[in-house]
Amino acid sequence: MRVGVLTGGGDCPGLNAVIRAAVRKGVTEYGFEFVGFRDGWKGPLEGLTMPLGIPQVRGILPRGGTILGSSRTNPIKIEGGVDRIKANMDQAGVDALIAIGGEDTLGVATKLDELGVPVVGVPKTIDNDLNATDYTFGFDTAVNIASEAIDRLHTTAESHHRVLVVEVMGRHAGWIALHAGMSGGANGILIPEVPFHLDEVVGWVESRFQTNYSPIIVVSEGALPADGEMVTKDQSLDAFGHVRLSGIGDWLASGLEARTGKEARAVVLGHIQRGGTPTAFDRVLATRFGLSAIDAIAAKDFGKMVALQSTNIVRVPFIEATGELKTVPLERYEEARPFFG
Amino acid sequence: MRVGVLTGGGDCPGLNAVIRAAVRKGVTEYGFEFVGFRDGWKGPLEGLTMPLGIPQVRGILPRGGTILGSSRTNPIKIEGGVDRIKANMDQAGVDALIAIGGEDTLGVATKLDELGVPVVGVPKTIDNDLNATDYTFGFDTAVNIASEAIDRLHTTAESHHRVLVVEVMGRHAGWIALHAGMSGGANGILIPEVPFHLDEVVGWVESRFQTNYSPIIVVSEGALPADGEMVTKDQSLDAFGHVRLSGIGDWLASGLEARTGKEARAVVLGHIQRGGTPTAFDRVLATRFGLSAIDAIAAKDFGKMVALQSTNIVRVPFIEATGELKTVPLERYEEARPFFG
Amino acid sequence: MRVGVLTGGGDCPGLNAVIRAAVRKGVTEYGFEFVGFRDGWKGPLEGLTMPLGIPQVRGILPRGGTILGSSRTNPIKIEGGVDRIKANMDQAGVDALIAIGGEDTLGVATKLDELGVPVVGVPKTIDNDLNATDYTFGFDTAVNIASEAIDRLHTTAESHHRVLVVEVMGRHAGWIALHAGMSGGANGILIPEVPFHLDEVVGWVESRFQTNYSPIIVVSEGALPADGEMVTKDQSLDAFGHVRLSGIGDWLASGLEARTGKEARAVVLGHIQRGGTPTAFDRVLATRFGLSAIDAIAAKDFGKMVALQSTNIVRVPFIEATGELKTVPLERYEEARPFFG
Amino acid sequence: MRVGVLTGGGDCPGLNAVIRAAVRKGVTEYGFEFVGFRDGWKGPLEGLTMPLGIPQVRGILPRGGTILGSSRTNPIKIEGGVDRIKANMDQAGVDALIAIGGEDTLGVATKLDELGVPVVGVPKTIDNDLNATDYTFGFDTAVNIASEAIDRLHTTAESHHRVLVVEVMGRHAGWIALHAGMSGGANGILIPEVPFHLDEVVGWVESRFQTNYSPIIVVSEGALPADGEMVTKDQSLDAFGHVRLSGIGDWLASGLEARTGKEARAVVLGHIQRGGTPTAFDRVLATRFGLSAIDAIAAKDFGKMVALQSTNIVRVPFIEATGELKTVPLERYEEARPFFG
Repeated sequence: MRVGVLTGGGDCPGLNAVIRAAVRKGVTEYGFEFVGFRDGWKGPLEGLTMPLGIPQVRGILPRGGTILGSSRTNPIKIEGGVDRIKANMDQAGVDALIAIGGEDTLGVATKLDELGVPVVGVPKTIDNDLNATDYTFGFDTAVNIASEAIDRLHTTAESHHRVLVVEVMGRHAGWIALHAGMSGGANGILIPEVPFHLDEVVGWVESRFQTNYSPIIVVSEGALPADGEMVTKDQSLDAFGHVRLSGIGDWLASGLEARTGKEARAVVLGHIQRGGTPTAFDRVLATRFGLSAIDAIAAKDFGKMVALQSTNIVRVPFIEATGELKTVPLERYEEARPFFG
Repeated sequence: MRVGVLTGGGDCPGLNAVIRAAVRKGVTEYGFEFVGFRDGWKGPLEGLTMPLGIPQVRGILPRGGTILGSSRTNPIKIEGGVDRIKANMDQAGVDALIAIGGEDTLGVATKLDELGVPVVGVPKTIDNDLNATDYTFGFDTAVNIASEAIDRLHTTAESHHRVLVVEVMGRHAGWIALHAGMSGGANGILIPEVPFHLDEVVGWVESRFQTNYSPIIVVSEGALPADGEMVTKDQSLDAFGHVRLSGIGDWLASGLEARTGKEARAVVLGHIQRGGTPTAFDRVLATRFGLSAIDAIAAKDFGKMVALQSTNIVRVPFIEATGELKTVPLERYEEARPFFG
Repeated sequence: MRVGVLTGGGDCPGLNAVIRAAVRKGVTEYGFEFVGFRDGWKGPLEGLTMPLGIPQVRGILPRGGTILGSSRTNPIKIEGGVDRIKANMDQAGVDALIAIGGEDTLGVATKLDELGVPVVGVPKTIDNDLNATDYTFGFDTAVNIASEAIDRLHTTAESHHRVLVVEVMGRHAGWIALHAGMSGGANGILIPEVPFHLDEVVGWVESRFQTNYSPIIVVSEGALPADGEMVTKDQSLDAFGHVRLSGIGDWLASGLEARTGKEARAVVLGHIQRGGTPTAFDRVLATRFGLSAIDAIAAKDFGKMVALQSTNIVRVPFIEATGELKTVPLERYEEARPFFG
Repeated sequence: MRVGVLTGGGDCPGLNAVIRAAVRKGVTEYGFEFVGFRDGWKGPLEGLTMPLGIPQVRGILPRGGTILGSSRTNPIKIEGGVDRIKANMDQAGVDALIAIGGEDTLGVATKLDELGVPVVGVPKTIDNDLNATDYTFGFDTAVNIASEAIDRLHTTAESHHRVLVVEVMGRHAGWIALHAGMSGGANGILIPEVPFHLDEVVGWVESRFQTNYSPIIVVSEGALPADGEMVTKDQSLDAFGHVRLSGIGDWLASGLEARTGKEARAVVLGHIQRGGTPTAFDRVLATRFGLSAIDAIAAKDFGKMVALQSTNIVRVPFIEATGELKTVPLERYEEARPFFG
């Protein structure tokens, strides 16, 4: 059997660990050969391949990024895309695919599966918002980076008697904000799932200042006020005439400063949350995903995605995973409330 | 309601996070008062208390250790111990206890529960070997520390063309070795649950040297050879005439050097695995355990231990947790085998 | 002898290490007593004191921030300020002061020294821009944090084929950008001392993209284009009508995207560079500064600032330190040029 | 010009940073070509080469180890060794050498220089015990690793009411122990330069236990008692009949337990101090060393070693560096004394 592997979508710590595990077990236990498709779906679409075997995967476990490259190319939206993929798989002698990626990548995999292409999926989202799996790799790393940043910010908030607003990733789901805020000892957490009232956040800030400490508010990039105060994101033109969107972190810091009279500053963690070496949790999870994916290939159990349920790696139909986003349930948000203020 | 809190057994990152969460929610949502019992069961046994409220728990979330102190005192084994505990609880006006600890501490809690003392347990073991919970806090921190050490050791093994044997914690269960070895890219993992053959380890080492890399073998302190080669641990007298036991790491390095002709060294991680600030995973888990424990107190749901199952915090009877150790199942060990050698 | 201690200006890792060392040696070797003045010069100005002795300094070595609090209060600018300080020192029975701070704090110390107040200075600036000392504590910590962030950003730049612009601290001096950029393997470094040409930066970016890697440009917050392209910082009004200034990082990312046609993003590290636990280098330096400061007090060697020269701690007159900023010499900037592009 | 590069001796974080900087500047500014000699002096001795250019040095800055490999081969001690080196340099068309290593490697370089081989040295010792340079790269990394370990051990010492003895590297010089001990807040530091009295260490331990804290003693592997208590290191036979030497850490822990009645444990940090990614300080220092080394080659300034003096990189004759070890001066040890006990 000859197996093609590709990685799609954004950077996420653990991608290389998945690739390594699948290749390692595929070669040593099943005697498979591998082909690397470069840059996500662009690889099979355009026939971009690279050698992939045990020599290529040595030493990559601790490294961020992906040795296969990535892209957001969607072959479904390209006329004749699926046929070109089939043709290129044939040409490369590839019998089955392992597709590692998020909603978009797995959406393509679902479509290909329906069209008879043998494919197994590995879920990847730093935001942890995919259904059917307890966690995705990359999430634990992102939460640790954000949590360490918050640790550092506490002493600065205190010594400057300031409000610090920490904006973390999470456009549609507040998992990173919830976990990093809980781990970092935030005095307020705002997530996309629960529209917030500025009045309430002002209350948390003022209550915190009544102790000898200073407040830190953690906010998902996708959080929004409940009451339409911010109908659209604030826009301005940058030095080159492009429209620039100001994020919720800046908006909130500005609002808190205006309302409380205390200096407030936003820290936008941005890309540092998604690169670099994975935590041990993510390395183990990604490795187990890779092992299970190659087992699925060997068992010809196609059209499935590997997933973590409790401490077990299981395989679920694509449809269970990609139907809708896994957002933060209200009770999980309410659980954190004793720490607000 | 007035709640007593105590921590028993060895150091474990996350203890302070549990205490903080229980006190924080207890005070702000239930209006409870708290009493800290010092040094594990010694506290209620001898009436050693300290003030415990929101001021005492501010800022302790990221700190290792326990503000309450700890001990291995077992009041069950002390004549009249249980009666003294009841008397001291009465005297301190304490209506219920939260006991945070491992098998021993929870064993005492089980006994007290049978004797009518209202008590809720929070599981704590760095070795992750308690049943009924997917993970215990402290484990993820220990695995990360060991994994980072292994990352560093790879370059040293390579540049010296040496075998490095890394001995990690785990007297009866190999969870730390399994996860740290998988995360660190070890070329062999040895755990107490699966007696090993030196011949096989020699094979892994020799196979690894045939690449351009050098082997790292991760071994639980409680791992043992299958074939009685090491009937007893090696003993010698130290400079002061005490018996000194040489660990499995040294034994294995010595054996591998003798058998392969390659220099081999053991690195014993020891205590650095169990101290210091917890990872984000452990802080969130410990915090959620603390919140759930105080909910149990409020619900008068005594005789239970909080536990993690999948992503949910649940409450289980003591008996489910302390019946037998949760060791590494054979299939989890076999899962890692493609990386050996 | 009774010694007052105060910390002024912004947060900086190592402040607590200085305080601890001075108190520890003052008490154990010289038999001094100590008084903590709270919140920088506001403390002696308003008579705000706190107890300061060995119990207060236990355990603070690894902690960021300052147990004494800080402020930017300048008593020189306040009518009768110096007299009030003298009076409050008398009232607290304080014979001499240790003032830990940056240019402003040491400027006040210089003035007080001229007016006969016995004072010893300890230099503190995260930007490393104080003369007469090779390094100031806090700088090494800031550089490490920025360097670790750049490490993580490399894999993200690669996987997204993007330009990443990393804006670090340094309003007037480019030390953090120079060291973090050199340490992080940046493909371009821009500092306030050397006005830059966008054309040249575009050249670096394009040259880097010709390899299989993606460019990272590190820029001091105070860097500016040479040719007046950015006459004023870009301004817009925020959601609450306040003027908002967009930083050089955003400006540069926008310009590079417009000029190269490649996606470019700015990451502004901001406050995370100045809080939290100090590195070992900074702990040792801060500790040695504290020890030397109390020696100066004991020797009645007032009007001096402690400083690092090579591996020695020396004492220099205030005037040598505060005359002008220590900016990056052109040859140090040119030294990094082989890595640009 | 064609330049050969080699790395000799033990692993040390920063070796790759030196290689990268020399190659990068050599190629881009001087138009040099490079040849990598493998495995230290074994490379030129046996004609083992590898390609070395900009592609080979991309991405290696943050990586521990050395891409060139290393060995302890000493060609001076091999009959005809020097002639073989000259012949192999000729054959590879190499005009000059950059030798990166410690006392042994630089000793060979000194000899070759006397015999007319054009060679420039770069000092490397994790122990920081080379004269003529303020610091060597690798040392700061080792100190940080040890300091972080000590941070973690504090909470464990406290929660177990134990003495912890931390054995760090340093056979002949106590720099790592001095800096890590000062940075980690140790309650006693023992170094090879100052023979210790067990009585005095017992005093520190007992004094520390009178506070609410537990003692941590940091000891160099080469430290020895003053009074001949430990005439020879303790010896025993291991499981395979080899002689095993017990280190000073175990000896000391055993002695402290016997004398104070408190549990004492040794933690031997060992190899984890010398591998893995370098700190920012070490990356900058190593990079600047590499740049200066290639400048020396270009200037035909042979027979010199690059060195750090204050913040400047200078070049000094080999003889200044290798004459005698740079040990810890007594006043630097005494400086730390206020923290003992």
